[in-house]
Amino acid sequence: MRKVGIIMGSDSDLPILKKTAATLTSLGIGYEVHVYSAHRTPAEARDFAVSARKNGFGVLICAAGMAAHLAGAIAANTTLPVIGIPCKSQTLDGIDALLSTVMMPSGIPVATVAIDGGVNAALLAAQILAVEDEGLAAKLDEKRRKDAAAVLEKDRGIAERIAE
Amino acid sequence: MRKVGIIMGSDSDLPILKKTAATLTSLGIGYEVHVYSAHRTPAEARDFAVSARKNGFGVLICAAGMAAHLAGAIAANTTLPVIGIPCKSQTLDGIDALLSTVMMPSGIPVATVAIDGGVNAALLAAQILAVEDEGLAAKLDEKRRKDAAAVLEKDRGIAERIAE
Amino acid sequence: MRKVGIIMGSDSDLPILKKTAATLTSLGIGYEVHVYSAHRTPAEARDFAVSARKNGFGVLICAAGMAAHLAGAIAANTTLPVIGIPCKSQTLDGIDALLSTVMMPSGIPVATVAIDGGVNAALLAAQILAVEDEGLAAKLDEKRRKDAAAVLEKDRGIAERIAE
Amino acid sequence: MRKVGIIMGSDSDLPILKKTAATLTSLGIGYEVHVYSAHRTPAEARDFAVSARKNGFGVLICAAGMAAHLAGAIAANTTLPVIGIPCKSQTLDGIDALLSTVMMPSGIPVATVAIDGGVNAALLAAQILAVEDEGLAAKLDEKRRKDAAAVLEKDRGIAERIAE
Amino acid sequence: MRKVGIIMGSDSDLPILKKTAATLTSLGIGYEVHVYSAHRTPAEARDFAVSARKNGFGVLICAAGMAAHLAGAIAANTTLPVIGIPCKSQTLDGIDALLSTVMMPSGIPVATVAIDGGVNAALLAAQILAVEDEGLAAKLDEKRRKDAAAVLEKDRGIAERIAE
Amino acid sequence: MRKVGIIMGSDSDLPILKKTAATLTSLGIGYEVHVYSAHRTPAEARDFAVSARKNGFGVLICAAGMAAHLAGAIAANTTLPVIGIPCKSQTLDGIDALLSTVMMPSGIPVATVAIDGGVNAALLAAQILAVEDEGLAAKLDEKRRKDAAAVLEKDRGIAERIAE
Amino acid sequence: MRKVGIIMGSDSDLPILKKTAATLTSLGIGYEVHVYSAHRTPAEARDFAVSARKNGFGVLICAAGMAAHLAGAIAANTTLPVIGIPCKSQTLDGIDALLSTVMMPSGIPVATVAIDGGVNAALLAAQILAVEDEGLAAKLDEKRRKDAAAVLEKDRGIAERIAE
Amino acid sequence: MRKVGIIMGSDSDLPILKKTAATLTSLGIGYEVHVYSAHRTPAEARDFAVSARKNGFGVLICAAGMAAHLAGAIAANTTLPVIGIPCKSQTLDGIDALLSTVMMPSGIPVATVAIDGGVNAALLAAQILAVEDEGLAAKLDEKRRKDAAAVLEKDRGIAERIAE
Repeated sequence: MRKVGIIMGSDSDLPILKKTAATLTSLGIGYEVHVYSAHRTPAEARDFAVSARKNGFGVLICAAGMAAHLAGAIAANTTLPVIGIPCKSQTLDGIDALLSTVMMPSGIPVATVAIDGGVNAALLAAQILAVEDEGLAAKLDEKRRKDAAAVLEKDRGIAERIAE
Repeated sequence: MRKVGIIMGSDSDLPILKKTAATLTSLGIGYEVHVYSAHRTPAEARDFAVSARKNGFGVLICAAGMAAHLAGAIAANTTLPVIGIPCKSQTLDGIDALLSTVMMPSGIPVATVAIDGGVNAALLAAQILAVEDEGLAAKLDEKRRKDAAAVLEKDRGIAERIAE
Repeated sequence: MRKVGIIMGSDSDLPILKKTAATLTSLGIGYEVHVYSAHRTPAEARDFAVSARKNGFGVLICAAGMAAHLAGAIAANTTLPVIGIPCKSQTLDGIDALLSTVMMPSGIPVATVAIDGGVNAALLAAQILAVEDEGLAAKLDEKRRKDAAAVLEKDRGIAERIAE
Repeated sequence: MRKVGIIMGSDSDLPILKKTAATLTSLGIGYEVHVYSAHRTPAEARDFAVSARKNGFGVLICAAGMAAHLAGAIAANTTLPVIGIPCKSQTLDGIDALLSTVMMPSGIPVATVAIDGGVNAALLAAQILAVEDEGLAAKLDEKRRKDAAAVLEKDRGIAERIAE
Repeated sequence: MRKVGIIMGSDSDLPILKKTAATLTSLGIGYEVHVYSAHRTPAEARDFAVSARKNGFGVLICAAGMAAHLAGAIAANTTLPVIGIPCKSQTLDGIDALLSTVMMPSGIPVATVAIDGGVNAALLAAQILAVEDEGLAAKLDEKRRKDAAAVLEKDRGIAERIAE
Repeated sequence: MRKVGIIMGSDSDLPILKKTAATLTSLGIGYEVHVYSAHRTPAEARDFAVSARKNGFGVLICAAGMAAHLAGAIAANTTLPVIGIPCKSQTLDGIDALLSTVMMPSGIPVATVAIDGGVNAALLAAQILAVEDEGLAAKLDEKRRKDAAAVLEKDRGIAERIAE
Repeated sequence: MRKVGIIMGSDSDLPILKKTAATLTSLGIGYEVHVYSAHRTPAEARDFAVSARKNGFGVLICAAGMAAHLAGAIAANTTLPVIGIPCKSQTLDGIDALLSTVMMPSGIPVATVAIDGGVNAALLAAQILAVEDEGLAAKLDEKRRKDAAAVLEKDRGIAERIAE
Repeated sequence: MRKVGIIMGSDSDLPILKKTAATLTSLGIGYEVHVYSAHRTPAEARDFAVSARKNGFGVLICAAGMAAHLAGAIAANTTLPVIGIPCKSQTLDGIDALLSTVMMPSGIPVATVAIDGGVNAALLAAQILAVEDEGLAAKLDEKRRKDAAAVLEKDRGIAERIAE
């Protein structure tokens, strides 16, 4: 199975991406992680993107805050699917990162997930890899069943808790 | 190659999705199109999603405006990758559809593209299908080269046009 | 009297809904509470909605955050009045949930109250049930009088407090 | 059956409310319509609200734009359910009216529908009246079936239209 | 000199209005303070407004949060100048209160100051009373001079503080 | 009676201020009008403000768009009440002008009216001048009665118009 | 004198940049113009930036809409001052481009002007070049005097126009 | 080399500007710092701006919050480049200051950096002074290399940290 590339613009985004990495691991998906800034290390970011397909990557996940250009800069240099995680920073509650990530011009898409959506970025990457991988698809179905069961488990106890 | 499902919540979104369909066709990707509303025909939307994988779909593209729940409702019923196109409607410039599409809770991702991003939804679908399809990846690379050439063609004539 | 259904998308919304439950109880209105996610347990959410009227419910109250689809998903499967409480989550101060709840397309209304408006959701449900129930209407009038008296009680002491 | 009161803050909101009136009529629900401004005719607005229940009203629908206080001012003077329609005006795309209508303080709810949501206000009023009226509930179910059929009718023709 | 009326929709706004009261006192302006809610005690709010001019008030200051209707409701019942203070509450950072206060329809103005602008509301009231009161105008001029001197005092020490 | 100063940052704001001038004239209030830019003619703007009180002005009305500093710049140089009209320009629907006008720091208030609120600025100026002028207060009361009558006149005809 | 580089992400931004070019020409400043997309021609954009200083440029002006990464991508590859013009596109009124341009992370500044601010970008470039160029500074002073005179010319005629 | 002027509207902005000063110092650039309010000390602010060029300044950096007029007021009185830092205050997360700073009307540009962007303001000032100063340009290049090296240093350790 192709592996997932995880790139963060700054290591301040690490807490979000730990969830990404853990989710990938739980699904048996390999990943490689990097700190590359679209602005401070543009050459490294570009080089990584340009050779990602031939280096065995299947999906790239990029996390950045503020004027979050990382996902777009990576997407400009590969035709692999690029998932963007807009990260909340000191001001504006992440809306700056969301718009900077999702409003890409025609030609270069970025698959954007929710602000700070580290888990969903991993799941989306897994869903992409599972298009041609029945075993992984089965794992995703299994996870859905477990998530549903967890909700229903909470449902069973909620009547008591609401009246406390 | 697996085909793409295109679902719109209302046929008022058709102009956006014509671009999606034309882009898929230009890349030799088959698609099937439906009008299913998450609210007015929830059963049909769900049934389509539940059986999409076994019916040969690889990616689903969902377009909706306002409280745009379609992509999320489809994503809740399949582990295929679901791409959401938030559509601008009469008020709020599409920000309602954007937030309703992208801010999905943990567990059920939607790969969101720009407001009214019909072309990019098709390209993202193609990139997903191309992860394991070298021929399609080559077509995408070729399209990138043509897009770049078109920009550079404009670059050559711009000095005259700016001074007109 | 018909009872009220309270559904939350996640038990993280419980603090808001405890106020809902307490307010209903104070007015002598019965309720039943569930944790059903529009995305993680879509079947259970739908089944609840489809049979709510014949199961004796009169109004359904749904609370969810982020891309808050729960109220809309419930409303799509019943013609009982559905009240939506948009819940504030980690980012965006609840504006995502508000727009996802209130901007419903024509055909499927959701009666939306303020962000985190747990008390008002209960009062609105009570007002709906009181349309044909004079006893309940009288209780609501009585609550209004008490609320007014509480304001006026504060009015009497405010001159001293402002100058402290 | 109790009738519906329709109140608009200004007759510039009439186009929105014509849809409300037509929808009510199509469901066999009687209504009475008024132009009362919360700011320019506060006494008339209040008097209407105070006596609405005893005058045979079951639900009140209020439409206003800008700092849309009408629904709140009516709701302050009755315990009937009050539905607020935030209307888009010259600037701000209706977000001012939406927040002014929906963000009511604890104690006085307004059941808010989408910006310019004239049809949904009528449907919500009908749903409220149908809680204890099986005949009206049946009409609403019937309307849902027709709406769904109309979507599916469009679904049948969409494949041709998208490729035009 | 006419006195100032200070009205708050809830005593949770008291910290803001303590600054208002203290500023008025420092300028020798008398005031009367009330807790009246536009929604919970509409009659008391209206009665206060209707008789404010003949009761010796010159300016009314109204503070409220969320769907902040208080200033508008007071302004609808008097032609005295009404100053609105939008108060920040649990969500939305006060933008709901700002738009609900400032976006008044033609005919009924509210003189709106900044979110939580308790001091400026008092100063604006003083400036209004000072139009025909040279003594008060002189006090305001004096306050301006002191404020400027305080800034310049800080200017003198800033070079040291910035390099610490 | 003191006169009103009307200052616009650009003559593109003239359509808004024609309503201001007409409203003042209808109330028998004299005014003087200027085009002074806070940025392009800061000296003239300042000089006007500094001498406004001794030149017989009672209230100053300032209209500007975008980063609307005019009202604040005028207010910094006089203790007369300054009314700010935020004007909508090419982008952002006036929210830039609204925030630039209303969010004044402590010490220098601007009495802000609605975006493009030319009529209300005049009425607020009149209300300020009427604090000590019973004749003008009576004219304002009379205008309120006429406005209310106009609403009620529309109320009488609305039942026919809504059903057309 | 060093020349100015003007780069647009798409020739749809040309109308904004014609004003930039005309303003530079009126001040006797040479410029070179290009269409380079940060996403579609990242290599050309980078190469231009990397060699801009040694090619005689003094300031670079970048215009782009939506997720406007162009100015940031250029700034990442040069230490020349980079001016960003956020351009309004089909939705969101330019707020997406503004935040994508201005909210740059620490280390790589972009000097951002107003949405669609083509003239001000040119003037800012001129002011930068004029820091060490007295002749150009004199031209800028002269332009300021002319702009002020134009405002005052309008001031002289405004009294007649407002009363028309 | 010309020095940099740093002006803050209030000493509450000092923490942001300490970073500005430290960055300038690290690059060997001299600066002078002042607390001048556009509203409370307009004369001092203006006098500083008017004589800044002849007093040896090359760039002015202005920091202010809320209706942040300081940068614009300074820019109106000099043709030196003026850099604006919008500062976050108690409400609205700095969006008020951002729009008040960046949306300057045609004729008077302000080079705006990110909300609370103290470091980038210094770097932008340095880049402006470096247009004609090769030594300073070399220092900026050196800083870029160090920043890149710091990112790559973090890159080397990230694989371990993400899996902790």
